[in-house]
Amino acid sequence: MTRLDEALVTVRPLDATAMAAAQDRLDHLTKPPGSLGRLEELVVWLAGVTGSPAPSVGRRRIIVAAGDHGVAMRQQVSAWPSDVTAQMVATFLAGRAAISTLAAAGDASIVVLDVGVASPIPAVATASSRTRLVEARIRPGTDDFTTGPAMTSDEALAAIEAGLRAVDDAAADGIELLGIGEMGIGNTTSASAIVAVLTGRDPREVTGRGTGVDDAGWGRKVDAIERGIAANAPDPADPLGVLAALGGFEIAALVGVIAGAAARQVPLVLDGFITGAAALVASALEPAIVPRLLAGHRSVEPGHAIVLERLGLRPLLELDMRLGEGTGAALAMGLVVAAAAVRDGMATFEEAAVSDRR
Amino acid sequence: MTRLDEALVTVRPLDATAMAAAQDRLDHLTKPPGSLGRLEELVVWLAGVTGSPAPSVGRRRIIVAAGDHGVAMRQQVSAWPSDVTAQMVATFLAGRAAISTLAAAGDASIVVLDVGVASPIPAVATASSRTRLVEARIRPGTDDFTTGPAMTSDEALAAIEAGLRAVDDAAADGIELLGIGEMGIGNTTSASAIVAVLTGRDPREVTGRGTGVDDAGWGRKVDAIERGIAANAPDPADPLGVLAALGGFEIAALVGVIAGAAARQVPLVLDGFITGAAALVASALEPAIVPRLLAGHRSVEPGHAIVLERLGLRPLLELDMRLGEGTGAALAMGLVVAAAAVRDGMATFEEAAVSDRR
Repeated sequence: MTRLDEALVTVRPLDATAMAAAQDRLDHLTKPPGSLGRLEELVVWLAGVTGSPAPSVGRRRIIVAAGDHGVAMRQQVSAWPSDVTAQMVATFLAGRAAISTLAAAGDASIVVLDVGVASPIPAVATASSRTRLVEARIRPGTDDFTTGPAMTSDEALAAIEAGLRAVDDAAADGIELLGIGEMGIGNTTSASAIVAVLTGRDPREVTGRGTGVDDAGWGRKVDAIERGIAANAPDPADPLGVLAALGGFEIAALVGVIAGAAARQVPLVLDGFITGAAALVASALEPAIVPRLLAGHRSVEPGHAIVLERLGLRPLLELDMRLGEGTGAALAMGLVVAAAAVRDGMATFEEAAVSDRR
Repeated sequence: MTRLDEALVTVRPLDATAMAAAQDRLDHLTKPPGSLGRLEELVVWLAGVTGSPAPSVGRRRIIVAAGDHGVAMRQQVSAWPSDVTAQMVATFLAGRAAISTLAAAGDASIVVLDVGVASPIPAVATASSRTRLVEARIRPGTDDFTTGPAMTSDEALAAIEAGLRAVDDAAADGIELLGIGEMGIGNTTSASAIVAVLTGRDPREVTGRGTGVDDAGWGRKVDAIERGIAANAPDPADPLGVLAALGGFEIAALVGVIAGAAARQVPLVLDGFITGAAALVASALEPAIVPRLLAGHRSVEPGHAIVLERLGLRPLLELDMRLGEGTGAALAMGLVVAAAAVRDGMATFEEAAVSDRR
C-alpha cells in the first residue's frame, strides 16, 4: 500500500454532527437566519471538515508547489521562458511576489515545495521570514509530453508523497487552514491536457491564454496538448496514469497535498486552474475528498469553470485573476477567517437582549 | 448655499494622472500584466479617487447610520419590531454584532451615527473600544410615508449634514478608507420606495424579503410602497424631494457621507441595498460621485442589482449576504487592503531580476 493509498482510505465524509452544531450556533446569533450567506456556509464547512463545531483557523499556511515542464522548454507553449520558474521561486523566498504580499496581509506562512524546478534557485539577498523552501526535486523538469509520458509512475508517486509530507509538516506545525498554489512555466498546458482527458472535453474548450500567449501561442498550446494525448493515449479511468502522462511534478505534489489534507481533516482552499486540475485527479482517486475542498476563486482561464462544474464546487471569489501562486486561495482564506470571526465574536439574541422576530 | 451644495460642487473627476502612474507601477511588477484582475482595478481606483498613485489605506473606518421608520412602526412591513434598531445599536457599541467582528478582523473602527433611532439606546455593560456612538438624532423615527412625507426637507438636509460632519470627523482622524453601513428596522421598505421612484421600476421588482418577511409581509411592503408613492407623488427629477418623502434619516445621513467622502477624495466602499439607494440619491445630485464609489458586494435583495446596474457599478463580492450593517463593505475593504499590499510589496521585474516575456 502506497502512502497515497493510506491517505485515501482514511478520508471520511464531512462530520454531520459538528455541522449541525455550527448551524445551530449561527441561527442564534443576532442576525436574521442565513443573512450572512456564504460566510455561514464557510462556518458549517469548517465544522464538517474538522469535526469540531468551531475550529480555530488562527494558524494558516499556503503550500506553493513548483516545477518545470518539458513541454514548455521544447514547444514554446508559454509567453515566458522556463527560467522564470526558478526566478519566481527566488522572488517568493525574498517575500516580494504577489503571493508573498497576500500571505502577509492574511497572516499566513508560505512553504515553497520544489519538486522539479529545472534551474538552480537564484540566491536571495534578504530572505522573507514568512517563507520556507522545501527541496524535494524529483528531477529538473518533466519530459516533453508530446512525445511520451511527462514522468514515470514512480516519479508521479514520489511527487505526490512530497505533497503528503508537506501536509505532515503542516500538521506538526499546528496549521489549521491550508491554501495551495503553484509556480511552473507551462503548467496551464499540462493542466489543460489533464482536464481535457479527465472531463472528456475538447482541448480547445479547456485551453486558455495562461499567463498571456497570443493567438499563435494558443494554437501551439492546443496542438501540443492534442499531440500529447495522441502520443500517450491516457485512460481517463486511470487518474494516476493521466497525471504521469501529462502532468507536472508540481501538479502531482498538489494531488498529494489535497489527499493529505483530506485525510488529516485540515480545511484546504484551492486556488485557480492548476490546483483545480490537481483536485480533479485527487477526486477521481477518492470522491469523498471533494466536499473537503473550498474553491477559493474562479480564474479567467476557461478550463477552470469546467473543472469547478465537474467538481460541483462554487467559487467564493470571481475577481478576474489568472496569476496562480495561491493568490486566489490567499484572498479566500481571508474570508474564511472573517467567517470564523463572526462565528466566535457575535452575541446570541439572548446574550445581547435583542428581541427576536415577531 | 447649503453644506451639501458646498460638498457637491467640489467633487472632481477621477485623477487620470495618478491612475496612469498606478497602472504603470502595476505593469512593472513580477506578474503577467493584468493577471491580478480586479485587484489591479482597485489599485487604479484608489489612485483616481485620492489623486495619489499609491495612497495608504492603513486607517479605516465604517460609518453605520441608524434610524427608525414610521412605516415600519405603523404598517408591519418588517419581520422584526422597531425596538430592534436601538437594541442592535447597543450590540454594535458592545462590539458583539456581525459588523463588530468583521471590522475587527479588518482592523477598522466603527462610528455609529444615530440620526433617528426611535427608542433609547440600552446601556452597554462592556463597551467596545473600536466603536463610537455619535448622537445626532433628528427625531425618534420618521413619519409613516403611506400618509405623507417621511420627513420635512429641512430634516432631510439636517440628516445629510450629520453625514457630512461624520466625514469631517473621519478626515480629522486621518481616515484613508471609508465603508458605510446602516441599521434601521423597515429600511428595505424605504430604500425600495426610493429606488422604484428614481429608476422608474415597479415596486414589485425592487422589493425583496428584507430581513425575512413571509409572503404576506412582502405583500404589505409592496402595498405600503405603492400607497407611499401615491400619497407623496414624488418627482423623480427631485432626488432630495424623493428622499424626504420616502427616505429614512439613516439613508439621508448616508447621502451626506457619500457626498462628503467624494468631496474630500476619500475612497468609499458601499455595502448593500440601503447604501445603494443612498448612492442613487447622491449620484442624482452629482453624477461625478459615482466613479468614486466601490460597490463592495451584491446582496440577494433584488433591488440591489437594479441599483448597481443603474449606477454602472460592478460589485466586488457576491456572497448571498443580506444583513446590512456594513458587513459587505467590511469584507470588500479587506480586498482593497490586499490590493494596496500587492501594490506596495511586490518587486518589479528589474528589482527581482526576473526575465520578462519572450
